Amino acid sequence: MNRSPYLAVSIHRHTAGQPVAAVSDDVVVEEPLEIRVEGRPVAVTMRTPGNDDELAVGFLQTEGVITSAADLLEVNQCPSTTDATGNSIDVLLRRPGAVDFERLTRHVFSASSCGLCGKATIESIHLRFPPLAPATSVSARILEHLPDQLTRLQETFQRTGGLHGAALFDETGTITVAREDVGRHNAVDKVIGHMLLRKPQGSGRNGTPAPPEHRPFGLFVSGRVSFEIIQKALAARIAVVAAVSAPSSLAVEFARKNGQVLVGFLRAGRMNVYAGEVSP
Amino acid sequence: MNRSPYLAVSIHRHTAGQPVAAVSDDVVVEEPLEIRVEGRPVAVTMRTPGNDDELAVGFLQTEGVITSAADLLEVNQCPSTTDATGNSIDVLLRRPGAVDFERLTRHVFSASSCGLCGKATIESIHLRFPPLAPATSVSARILEHLPDQLTRLQETFQRTGGLHGAALFDETGTITVAREDVGRHNAVDKVIGHMLLRKPQGSGRNGTPAPPEHRPFGLFVSGRVSFEIIQKALAARIAVVAAVSAPSSLAVEFARKNGQVLVGFLRAGRMNVYAGEVSP
Repeated sequence: MNRSPYLAVSIHRHTAGQPVAAVSDDVVVEEPLEIRVEGRPVAVTMRTPGNDDELAVGFLQTEGVITSAADLLEVNQCPSTTDATGNSIDVLLRRPGAVDFERLTRHVFSASSCGLCGKATIESIHLRFPPLAPATSVSARILEHLPDQLTRLQETFQRTGGLHGAALFDETGTITVAREDVGRHNAVDKVIGHMLLRKPQGSGRNGTPAPPEHRPFGLFVSGRVSFEIIQKALAARIAVVAAVSAPSSLAVEFARKNGQVLVGFLRAGRMNVYAGEVSP
Repeated sequence: MNRSPYLAVSIHRHTAGQPVAAVSDDVVVEEPLEIRVEGRPVAVTMRTPGNDDELAVGFLQTEGVITSAADLLEVNQCPSTTDATGNSIDVLLRRPGAVDFERLTRHVFSASSCGLCGKATIESIHLRFPPLAPATSVSARILEHLPDQLTRLQETFQRTGGLHGAALFDETGTITVAREDVGRHNAVDKVIGHMLLRKPQGSGRNGTPAPPEHRPFGLFVSGRVSFEIIQKALAARIAVVAAVSAPSSLAVEFARKNGQVLVGFLRAGRMNVYAGEVSP
C-alpha cells in the first residue's frame, strides 16, 4: 500500500498586523503501526506511513530479534481483522522457534510513551481521558511572546543545543514553569508534574480529599507536536497547546475531537491555528 | 539530588580550511530513570536528570494512573539496591490498591523504544550487541556533503517541517538510502530495514544460509543523537554516525566504548568529533 506521508488540512494563519487567512497546509501523517512476528503483536509504534516493511525488519534487527537478512522469510502488510488501514505488518522468520516472545513483548510492547498501545485508536484514549468542553477563544496576543520567554528560560539548550523545552502558561500568556529534557515527552511530563507537586497533596491514606484544583491554561513546547504530546495535554486537562514547530496529522485530528486549541509555527508574531479558535 | 543537566566532554572541532582544534564542549546529560509505584518498577525513561519528582508524577498523570494531586502521598528519590546514581524514584499513593499493576507495566514498561529496559546500563547492551573493532579513520571530506544530499532527498520535510530524516552512506560519502518519519527512531529503523530487505533473504525454513553481507559504512541523521540512535547503529553494526545536531552524554559514552565514530553539528563544512577519529 503506497500512502502519502503528508495530508492537507485547512488552517487559519495569523500574521502580525495582517488579517487572519484561511489556507490549506500540509502536515506530516502520523499513524500507529502494529508490528507482528509470526502473527503475534510485539510492538506498536507511531510512524509516518511508507516503507513499513523496512521499519518492521529494521526494528526487529535493532531490538536484537534478528541478526541478518538470512533470518527473514517473508514480510506481509495486511489489514488486521479490525482495521483496514494497513497499519499492521507481520514478519515471518526462518527459525521462528528462536524468538523469546515473553521477553520481547515485555521489552518492547509500548508505543514509545505515546500513551497508546494495542488497539491504537483515538477512541480508546477517550475511555480514559474524556474530551474537554470547547475552549474559550484565545487571543493571538497572549501567545506571541511565548517563544521569547521560553528562550530566556532555556539555559541548557543555549549551552548544548541538545534539549527540548516545555512550559505552562497562564491566561495572560505568562510562562509559570519551564523545563528542559533530552526527551520531548519528559519535558512535558515535568511541567505537568510540577503543577501536581505544587498543589495540596493527599493528607494521608484515608485522609480528606484536597480542595478543587486550578488547571493550567496552556502548554507551550519548543519543537513539534506529535500525538503523544497532545494526548499528555488532554490527560492533564490542558486546553491550549502551542508549539514552535509543526504538528502531526494525528495531533491535529486529536485536538479537534477533544476541544483543544492547537497552534503551530509560533514564531516572530506569526502562527498557524490547526484546531480551535484564536482571535487576532 | 541536584545534578547538572550538562557535561563537558573533550572533542575535536573541524572547520573547513582550518586546523583541527581539541576543545571542551558541553553535551546534554541523558540517563535512565526508573519510575516505581509503591516500590514496583513501572517504567524506565531516558531523561535529563533534574526535577525527577515532577517527571515521575507527571508521567503517572499522563498515563492515567493518578488523576490529581490528591492521589499522591509521597515521592522518594532513592538509590536503588544496585545503583547509587539516584536514577530511581518511588511514588507512594493515597490509594495504592486502585492501581492495576498488570495493565500498567504491560502498557508502559519500555524505555521509549530506546532498546533498554529495567537494568539500564551500557553493559547490558553489550550482552546483545558486542562492540565493533576500532573503526578505520574517516575523512572529514566524505562527511561534508551529507547535509546537502539529505536536504535534497527530504521532500516531505520541506513540505511539512515535521519529519526526521535518516540516511545510510557509503565509503565515498554518497547517500545510498534516505527515509523520513515523524519518529526519529523510525527513520533509522527504516534505513536499516531497507538494507536488510535488499540483501538475500533466507531461502526457506530449513534452507541454506545466505552469503556473508556487506555492512553499511555510516548513518546520517537530520537531528540529534540520543542513546537509542547510537544503540540502533551498533545493533546494525554501523561504525560511523553523523548528525546535524547535538549528541547526548550517553550517546558519546556509548560510541566511545563501542568503537564507533560519532560526529555532531555537521553543518556548512564544520563538525564536532565526539568519539573516534576523523582525519582533516
